[in-house]
Amino acid sequence: MDVAQVLHMNGGDGDYSYSNNSLLQRKVISMTKPIIDDALADLYSAMNFPKTLIMADLGCSSGPNTLLVASELVKSVDKIRQKFGNDESPEIQIYLNDLPHNDFNTIFLSVSKFQKNLTNQMVPSSSSPCYVSGVPGSFYTRLFLSKSIHFVYSSYSLMWLSQVPKMINTNKGNIYMSTTSPPNVIKAYHEQFQRDFLMFLKCRKEEMVSGGRMVLTILGRQSDDPCSKECCYVWDLLATSLNDMVAEGLIDEEKLDSFNIPQYTPSPKEVCNEVEKEGSFAINRLKVSEVDWDACTDNNVNSLEEDAQGYNMGKCMRAVAEPLILSYFGESIIEEVFERYTNNIKICMSREKAKLVNVTLSMTRKG
Amino acid sequence: MDVAQVLHMNGGDGDYSYSNNSLLQRKVISMTKPIIDDALADLYSAMNFPKTLIMADLGCSSGPNTLLVASELVKSVDKIRQKFGNDESPEIQIYLNDLPHNDFNTIFLSVSKFQKNLTNQMVPSSSSPCYVSGVPGSFYTRLFLSKSIHFVYSSYSLMWLSQVPKMINTNKGNIYMSTTSPPNVIKAYHEQFQRDFLMFLKCRKEEMVSGGRMVLTILGRQSDDPCSKECCYVWDLLATSLNDMVAEGLIDEEKLDSFNIPQYTPSPKEVCNEVEKEGSFAINRLKVSEVDWDACTDNNVNSLEEDAQGYNMGKCMRAVAEPLILSYFGESIIEEVFERYTNNIKICMSREKAKLVNVTLSMTRKG
Repeated sequence: MDVAQVLHMNGGDGDYSYSNNSLLQRKVISMTKPIIDDALADLYSAMNFPKTLIMADLGCSSGPNTLLVASELVKSVDKIRQKFGNDESPEIQIYLNDLPHNDFNTIFLSVSKFQKNLTNQMVPSSSSPCYVSGVPGSFYTRLFLSKSIHFVYSSYSLMWLSQVPKMINTNKGNIYMSTTSPPNVIKAYHEQFQRDFLMFLKCRKEEMVSGGRMVLTILGRQSDDPCSKECCYVWDLLATSLNDMVAEGLIDEEKLDSFNIPQYTPSPKEVCNEVEKEGSFAINRLKVSEVDWDACTDNNVNSLEEDAQGYNMGKCMRAVAEPLILSYFGESIIEEVFERYTNNIKICMSREKAKLVNVTLSMTRKG
Repeated sequence: MDVAQVLHMNGGDGDYSYSNNSLLQRKVISMTKPIIDDALADLYSAMNFPKTLIMADLGCSSGPNTLLVASELVKSVDKIRQKFGNDESPEIQIYLNDLPHNDFNTIFLSVSKFQKNLTNQMVPSSSSPCYVSGVPGSFYTRLFLSKSIHFVYSSYSLMWLSQVPKMINTNKGNIYMSTTSPPNVIKAYHEQFQRDFLMFLKCRKEEMVSGGRMVLTILGRQSDDPCSKECCYVWDLLATSLNDMVAEGLIDEEKLDSFNIPQYTPSPKEVCNEVEKEGSFAINRLKVSEVDWDACTDNNVNSLEEDAQGYNMGKCMRAVAEPLILSYFGESIIEEVFERYTNNIKICMSREKAKLVNVTLSMTRKG
C-alpha cells in the first residue's frame, strides 16, 4: 500500500464526507486552543512586533475544520497584537498542507469568503490581509524553503505513518496493534513511528526560523502499553467486522491477514523521546487530554435518537478510513464493512464510555 | 456574471479538457522562453547569487502547461547558476495561482513526480529542491505577502477581465468588441482593461521585491483598432454560431444580446501606457509575436485528416470558453454551439491563415 497515494479523508460534502463528519476533530482543536494562544503570544513577543507571520497547518484535511484552524490562528494573533498595544497587524501567510489526494479544490472555493469573514470580524482599522496557499505533499518530506516558517501547527495527523510497518510476522486476525499481535509486529509499528517522527522533526528543523513555535496534537495513549485499549479499541472493532466477513466467506482470509492500518498512537514519553533525540526543539508544554467518542455528535441536533452517538462515530470513522479500506478491499464490500463496524461501535458505546487520548506538545525551535 | 466564479479552463483530462487542448498555449510559452531566460539571468546577477528565489505563475491553469512552466523556470535558473560558476543552487519556491474554480487537485497529483523528474534532469550535485504551492484567487487582488516575490510570470491570462464591462448600449448581435459594436461598448471594454491592468500592477508592486522581474504574455493585437480582425475574429465566429441558433429559435435573442465575453486584447501601446501610468515598473523589453491557429494541432499526430487543424482549434476554444457558455446559456445547447463554432473555424481556416497576436512584456520592479 502506497500510503501517500491512498490516505486521505473522504472528500466532497456528501453524507460520509470528512467535511460533514469531523466534529470530534473540531472538539480536539478547540480543546488545544489555549496552548496555541500561549505559543503564539510567546512567539509574537519574542519576535518583537513582527510585520509578517508565516504559519503552516500540516495535515489540514478538507472541510470546515481546515479554515476554522486558519481563522483561529489569525484571530489569536490579532488579540495578542491588541493586548500588546500594537496598532498594526502583521501580514499573515498560512500554508495548508496535506497529501496530494486531499480535496484542495473544495478548500479553495471557500478561501475568498473566509478572508472576507475574517476582515469583518476584526477591528477594521487593524484588519490585515491573510494569504492562503495549499501545499501538496507528505510532511515526512521537506515542504517549505529553509528558515521560512514561524509557526507550525498539526492536529490529528502525526499518528498516520508514512507507510505500513514492514513486519516479519503476520499480524493474523488483526489490522492494527492488538493484544494478540506478535511482539515483532508491535516493534515494527513502534520503529516506524520513531523513523517517521524523527524525519518530521528533521524537516521542520530546516524549515523553521530560530525561535519558531510548533504545536502538535497527536492521537495517542496514556499507557506505556502500545496495545492498551484506549488506543487500539477503535481499530479492534473494525477488525471484528472484517473477521466476521472472512468467516462468512465475504472477504479472503489471506487478504485480511496482510492488511494493516498505517497508524501509531504514541505515548507522551515516546513523543518526548524522539524530540530529545533529534535535539533541535525545546519542549515548553506537554498535555494529555481525552475526548469522548460521542463528541462526533452535535448534542443539539441528534440527541433524539438513542444510538445516534454510535451512528455518528461510525460515520466519523468511515470518513477517515474509507479510502484505505476501499483501495485495499475494493468497492463491493464497503457498505457491508461500515454497516457492521457502525453496529459494533453502537454496541460498545451503549456499554461503556469510550475515549480517545490526545497528546499535545508545544515546542520552540532552538536558536 | 461573476467572472471569478465562472471563468476557468475545462478541468480533468477528458476530450474537451484544457489539459488535452492547450498545445497553442504551450507554443506561446516556448516562444517567450528566451525573454524569460534573459529576465532570470538579469535577476540572478542583480541578486548576487541568491540562496532563495520565490516565483509566481499567475493564471497557471491546470494541465501539462502548468508544471511545464514551473519546470522551465527551475531549469533556466539552474543553467544560469552554472554559467555564473556558482556551485550551490538556490532553493526555489513556486506559487501556482489561478481562480478558485481552477482544477488544483489535478495539478497537485503531479507535483511529486514533477519534483523527482527535475532532480533527475539536473546535475545531481547541484540539484536543489523546488517547493510548489497553489494560491487560489484573482490576480486583480493581493495574493502574496508584501515584498516577498522575486519573479512574476503570466502567460495568456491577463486578457481576461475581472468582470464583463458595464455597458450603456447593448452590444446587439455581438459577444465581444466588433466592427458593429456601438462606440460606448468599445469604450467600456477599454476602460475595464485599464482599471484591471492598473490594479494588477498595483498589487504586484506591493508583493514584489525591489529589482524583482516580471514577464507577462498577453493575448493582444498589433493594430490600434480594438475591433481589428486579428483579435476579434475568433469570437466573431462564436457569435455567428450563437446568432444562427437565435435565428432558429434555439437561443433566446435577449439572452444573447446581454452576453459578452470578459476579455480585452490590448495593443502594445495600451499595455505600456498603463505600466507608465502606474509608475513602479521599468519596461526592459516589449515583443509582439504571432501564433497560427493551427498551433493547436500536433503536426506529427493529426496531419492525416484534412480539417484536423480546424477541429483542434475548435476543441482548444471549447476548453477555454465552455465554462463561460455553460454557466450563461445552460447545458442543453453546449454540444450544438461548439459543433457549429468548430465548423465555422474549419471554414475560416480552409480559406486563410488565421493568427493570434501575443504581446510580451519584460519589466523590473523599480527600487
